[in-house]
Amino acid sequence: MNTTTEPFAAVEVIAAKRDRNVISDPMIDWVVDAYTRGIVADEQMSALLMAILLNGMNPNEISRWTQAMINSGERLNWSMLKRPTADKHSTGGVGDKITLPLSPLVSACGASVPQLSGRGLGHTGGTLDKLESISGWRADLSNQEMLAVLESCGAVICAAGAGLAPADKKLYALRDVTGTVESIPLIASSIMSKKIAEGTGSLVLDVKTGSGAFMSDPERARELARTMVQLGVAAGVKTVALVTAMDVPLGLTVGNALEVRESVEVLAGGGPADVVELTLTLAREMLAIAGISGGKDPADALKDGSAMDVWRKMIKAQGGDPDAALPVAAHQEQVLADRDGVIANLDALSVGVAAWRLGAGRSRQGERVQAGAGVEIFAKPGDTVKKGQPIMTLHTDTPERFARALEALDGGWSVGEKTAPRMPLILDRIGSQDGHIN
Amino acid sequence: MNTTTEPFAAVEVIAAKRDRNVISDPMIDWVVDAYTRGIVADEQMSALLMAILLNGMNPNEISRWTQAMINSGERLNWSMLKRPTADKHSTGGVGDKITLPLSPLVSACGASVPQLSGRGLGHTGGTLDKLESISGWRADLSNQEMLAVLESCGAVICAAGAGLAPADKKLYALRDVTGTVESIPLIASSIMSKKIAEGTGSLVLDVKTGSGAFMSDPERARELARTMVQLGVAAGVKTVALVTAMDVPLGLTVGNALEVRESVEVLAGGGPADVVELTLTLAREMLAIAGISGGKDPADALKDGSAMDVWRKMIKAQGGDPDAALPVAAHQEQVLADRDGVIANLDALSVGVAAWRLGAGRSRQGERVQAGAGVEIFAKPGDTVKKGQPIMTLHTDTPERFARALEALDGGWSVGEKTAPRMPLILDRIGSQDGHIN
Repeated sequence: MNTTTEPFAAVEVIAAKRDRNVISDPMIDWVVDAYTRGIVADEQMSALLMAILLNGMNPNEISRWTQAMINSGERLNWSMLKRPTADKHSTGGVGDKITLPLSPLVSACGASVPQLSGRGLGHTGGTLDKLESISGWRADLSNQEMLAVLESCGAVICAAGAGLAPADKKLYALRDVTGTVESIPLIASSIMSKKIAEGTGSLVLDVKTGSGAFMSDPERARELARTMVQLGVAAGVKTVALVTAMDVPLGLTVGNALEVRESVEVLAGGGPADVVELTLTLAREMLAIAGISGGKDPADALKDGSAMDVWRKMIKAQGGDPDAALPVAAHQEQVLADRDGVIANLDALSVGVAAWRLGAGRSRQGERVQAGAGVEIFAKPGDTVKKGQPIMTLHTDTPERFARALEALDGGWSVGEKTAPRMPLILDRIGSQDGHIN
Repeated sequence: MNTTTEPFAAVEVIAAKRDRNVISDPMIDWVVDAYTRGIVADEQMSALLMAILLNGMNPNEISRWTQAMINSGERLNWSMLKRPTADKHSTGGVGDKITLPLSPLVSACGASVPQLSGRGLGHTGGTLDKLESISGWRADLSNQEMLAVLESCGAVICAAGAGLAPADKKLYALRDVTGTVESIPLIASSIMSKKIAEGTGSLVLDVKTGSGAFMSDPERARELARTMVQLGVAAGVKTVALVTAMDVPLGLTVGNALEVRESVEVLAGGGPADVVELTLTLAREMLAIAGISGGKDPADALKDGSAMDVWRKMIKAQGGDPDAALPVAAHQEQVLADRDGVIANLDALSVGVAAWRLGAGRSRQGERVQAGAGVEIFAKPGDTVKKGQPIMTLHTDTPERFARALEALDGGWSVGEKTAPRMPLILDRIGSQDGHIN
């Protein structure tokens, strides 16, 4: 693969990391760029990724790798906006619909929110999949359309264009088929390259931990959070991370249209307590880091309808009808309490996999999802129930899916004498002060 | 890549080794076979190879992996021969022409020697490249031609056909471009899958160590030797390994025709002492392990011309003319002693790289080599020299190569007061007794 015009050979870079050496800045710049250009082959990059996964990267290597991925594409710029920009990213969880109420809420309180989002894969849902259950709503906007929605509404939620960090897109697809996903340096650089390329001035990260999260171990979640905060700060983006619970589903709905319904409830001043609490906490973090103080408190913006106004305007600006009835699945099945008692546990992973199997998620990129499919929850850990009372309703358009969804739930919930210990909603906050991550 | 008809997904196998688990027998059988069939992609196999390189394989995994590679192709069978078969493999060294005199010698002493060999890549030469400097000699024989030469001469040296361990051929090419060559389990299984598929009843391994060897560290060389002996024994092949010195070139010639000339000198009862000693030692090991005792001693077969008779017959049987003059390079340049004294050192790697750069070796598979190119040595460590006396003659058809060859030699030899410490020619012998490798 090495030709006289290339400064390195792929094997040199692979061998350096394989032998536990530091990869130099010029090597990192070259290997990411050469991979994007097709000079470094997939089989060479996957060997390097496995060496990175097993031997790690130091903070400078991770930062340079991230920068190289940003440099592979365009970098958006929102300096023409009058208001400071604030963005949020979640590592993904079961029932995590927070972006939906959060973006209009933060806009209503004074920041611009250019929220570029993704689709779901596996047991965690994708923000775009959820919003696409709204009749007419379009995820794919040109940069010009994105700017127009941002200027008129103060918030936009749309798909990240192909021009942002193309190296990351190629690497992400490769990691998926080569067992090289579970590396903190690679996860952190993938997320942060996209977020930094999106051009936000400040960023709040919601790093999930617990059974339903990608990082089930809180210590690994903290490490991921610290790594991402370092990367943001190094790139000049004000960044803070919360480590939050994903041992139990967020809220009472898991599934695309079901989660939109719940998000609208929150915007209307209602909604489940945990969703409201996390939405408000993240909104306050975003406003603080964007330097907005003394304005309207997010709790008031939910009560007075101003967040709902932004939501409706934003949905309309992207072709959606905020008043259209949401899709409902054709078939339902109930899960009933098998005894009197309290809900002892309700495992996020089990519910996430059940919703996925019901048709709310996809197994392969490009697969269609069912808008109405998912799980509606009626009782959460600590709630008292009577035998025969519905605990969950499963929704799907394809009733042959019920059996495997019920299998996923088997052992994932129980009624007992008392509630099992669970995580606090917010486990940790990692920010940077004078360049120190803490 | 996983389809309903495949028992595993590639990512499962990769993740098992990545997470330091043992890969099960069915997984190994499947992944090697599926890679050969193109179901497992190059980028998946290279990630697995890197995980194997960094996390290792246990003896059962290595043995199963080897067997799976053997099963990917045909396995030769020499049971129709009247005499026991003995084969030898060297891991490659500078000036290592031992196969040339050894094969006819062992045949002259009573064993059949089906010696399937390779071409050179990098600074170590290939047996087939050397023999091809003999006018008319053909390396590529059908299985039937191979058998005919073996029956008429008792020895054959030819190219391994494409039908032997095709999985290894594909893996070898992949490892070369993905930085996954330097793994003892992968090296051992690659060598042994070919050797076992070649169908020999007994095998003597010459594992080189020192600067000019692939395994410069003697401890790693011993580990490779032990691993290969275990694999041979597990597959029912009587196997013994010698660990031998490659800190200084073997003999006094490095290069294709130059090494044929020296081999013929050995067969004529002369030749450099180290080449003769290693040839005799390996011949005695091969005869012993093949169960041949009380026959002609190899030293006598060199003296009485019987080994030379087999050589001439074997070369003729493969279309070569043993009496034809060997090619001589068009240009020569001498390296002279810069002072009076003794040769303190003569580094194998430096001389190997010099010969390679002069045109004796290739940088890419398929490249042509120069028959006459190489290095002729006149003084070895311990020899007394006078200032201005020739130490080496460099040979090439392309004189613009002299400068870079001289660069490679710079610092690779010196004249001083006394000889630097050097390795004994034979460092270790690893055999198996009652299933124990020792």
